[in-house]
Amino acid sequence: MTTDPVALTAELVRCPSITPEEGGALSLLEERLSRAGFACTRVDRGGIANLYARWGAAGHPRSFGFNGHTDVVPLGDPEAWTMPPFGAEIRDGILYGRGATDMKSGVAAFAAAAIDFVTATPPDGAVILAITGDEEGVATDGTVALLDWMQEKGEAMSVCLVGEPTCPETLGEMMKIGRRGSLTARFRARGRQGHVAYPHRALNPMPALVRLLDRLAGRELDQGTDHFDASTLAITTIDVGNPANNVIPAEGRATVNIRFNDAHSADSLTTWMQEECDAIAADTGVTIEMEASCSGESFVTPPGPLSDLVAGAVEAETGIRPVLSTSGGTSDARFVKDHCPVVEFGLVGRTMHQVDECVEVAQIEALKAIYLRCLRDYFAQ
Amino acid sequence: MTTDPVALTAELVRCPSITPEEGGALSLLEERLSRAGFACTRVDRGGIANLYARWGAAGHPRSFGFNGHTDVVPLGDPEAWTMPPFGAEIRDGILYGRGATDMKSGVAAFAAAAIDFVTATPPDGAVILAITGDEEGVATDGTVALLDWMQEKGEAMSVCLVGEPTCPETLGEMMKIGRRGSLTARFRARGRQGHVAYPHRALNPMPALVRLLDRLAGRELDQGTDHFDASTLAITTIDVGNPANNVIPAEGRATVNIRFNDAHSADSLTTWMQEECDAIAADTGVTIEMEASCSGESFVTPPGPLSDLVAGAVEAETGIRPVLSTSGGTSDARFVKDHCPVVEFGLVGRTMHQVDECVEVAQIEALKAIYLRCLRDYFAQ
Repeated sequence: MTTDPVALTAELVRCPSITPEEGGALSLLEERLSRAGFACTRVDRGGIANLYARWGAAGHPRSFGFNGHTDVVPLGDPEAWTMPPFGAEIRDGILYGRGATDMKSGVAAFAAAAIDFVTATPPDGAVILAITGDEEGVATDGTVALLDWMQEKGEAMSVCLVGEPTCPETLGEMMKIGRRGSLTARFRARGRQGHVAYPHRALNPMPALVRLLDRLAGRELDQGTDHFDASTLAITTIDVGNPANNVIPAEGRATVNIRFNDAHSADSLTTWMQEECDAIAADTGVTIEMEASCSGESFVTPPGPLSDLVAGAVEAETGIRPVLSTSGGTSDARFVKDHCPVVEFGLVGRTMHQVDECVEVAQIEALKAIYLRCLRDYFAQ
Repeated sequence: MTTDPVALTAELVRCPSITPEEGGALSLLEERLSRAGFACTRVDRGGIANLYARWGAAGHPRSFGFNGHTDVVPLGDPEAWTMPPFGAEIRDGILYGRGATDMKSGVAAFAAAAIDFVTATPPDGAVILAITGDEEGVATDGTVALLDWMQEKGEAMSVCLVGEPTCPETLGEMMKIGRRGSLTARFRARGRQGHVAYPHRALNPMPALVRLLDRLAGRELDQGTDHFDASTLAITTIDVGNPANNVIPAEGRATVNIRFNDAHSADSLTTWMQEECDAIAADTGVTIEMEASCSGESFVTPPGPLSDLVAGAVEAETGIRPVLSTSGGTSDARFVKDHCPVVEFGLVGRTMHQVDECVEVAQIEALKAIYLRCLRDYFAQ
């Protein structure tokens, strides 16, 4: 008898696990995995629930790891949903609910594959699931807590597959072998308030701020690198809040976010922006403060055994050879990459975070088959 | 017996006439001027009280006009005042209260001078006071209402003196013979919202908006003209209000205000800015809407008989020959200039609109003497 990944997805969707609520999702997984012989440990930290599950000997030098999350983003406007957001109702072969795509189906597909695999053909090695309840939030006590705990206990994954949705339109077309970095810089330009009729008595910070932002947004950061698209910079907001059109404001604030590839680092970009600030401040007399924070450097697991293994399994099951991409936002792979080679493969992500999030049940079954093949091929090597 | 301009200032300050409240100020003036033989008419319009007072025959070809206002700006933080804002208390020769400088003292000084003048030496001509209760507000039913009414009734001023504060530091140093124009333009740049990780699926309006503002603020409009300082442009606000640093905003707004001299007009500046908008919109695909509104074109009463008369009176009383300036904000002279030559002379304006607004009582007396000399010299010609 095999494990039904669709039924498990439905059970998980029915757990209202909006970050940081555990919602019963990790307890459910713990129960199923324990029953199949996995040693389960709750690695809770800072109010966040996390689950570490290992089949096989602790510290085994050959282990296949999986990383995913059971927490989900909020519903948005609950009235806008046409299906119950925690109902997991299936209509015309499509399962609806928050987390259906991102990523309870991915967790269910791997858990089902892992249970069936270790039951049918117990491998010489370990199968590990590191499942967090905080990927959608600040993520400081999620996958990081699991990795910290593992290191402390001498537990490790030889390789890791992250089960986030990776396919834009069709199952199989894309996997991720890395991610761009993300750097946010907040600027505060300060001058001296005054009446617009007497500009010489004031110092308007806004011309300096718009010149700075024009220079930052106008620069081509690079044209892409071997494994990455070009880096991009977005001005996300500028705010002054001055309602009086006869008043020169004292201060203006702006934020930019950079998604950067391996031609840069958070340090090199911070240095560049600081130099631009300093040059414009010197030209204008306006004080410009910058506060930069990096939520992750760029990283890549170069094409090799792990990406070949996963791409091969995807192609065998779907007939499509996935593109090895580093596009998109960040994921918890940014934490895992410091511990072992990591790649990502999962479902079509089109409805993630949206109202009426949904997934084709056939795709959940296909994903389980892909994950099962990854496990078989890994331990057959 | 002469009229005490300090006592009259104090009485006016005690009237709480924050725009649009009349507060008893115009009734008080009407009573004093009527008693001295002025024909008074209340020219109220749109909830605003205005007072027209004429001594002498209606339609007399030789008339000296005065324009001023009795409304005052709000107190700001009442707790910040160390003197009662409507108390008109005098301490160490300084009278305190909202409107002490701007411009109840100016109105009182001219009313006192006019009463004394027509009483002592009745002129062959008319003396006119056009006093409004809305100069600090939107000003659509203030001096404009008075001028409309005068035109309708066949009443006119041959020349007009506006009694706004004109001196930066020392009484006598500056009079105004014109004003720069003021044009406000509001911009709305619209693109397409999206995730910063997928900028190709979004269209960020902010690079277009900052480039536009950089071009506008970076242009030297002129280097000044015969009677005017250089025109200036101020970015007064930019507002997006996007709290999410991973979201490209759909829209951004900005406002600029231009104070312009006679090298430009509202039309020429609007055309220039529209061309800049169109060029950047064409380059970027961002939609940029502009809404421009002019609260007054630039104007000047070139140096001549009226400015000579007032400057001569100022010099005779203070020993200082006033500079003929067009600096500063707008005033109701922008309305009067369509009807007759107009200049402005008044007190030191340093504390106007501030907490603990105040005026030296000696300056009120000096101002009355200057105004009295203007009247004498005008009718002696």
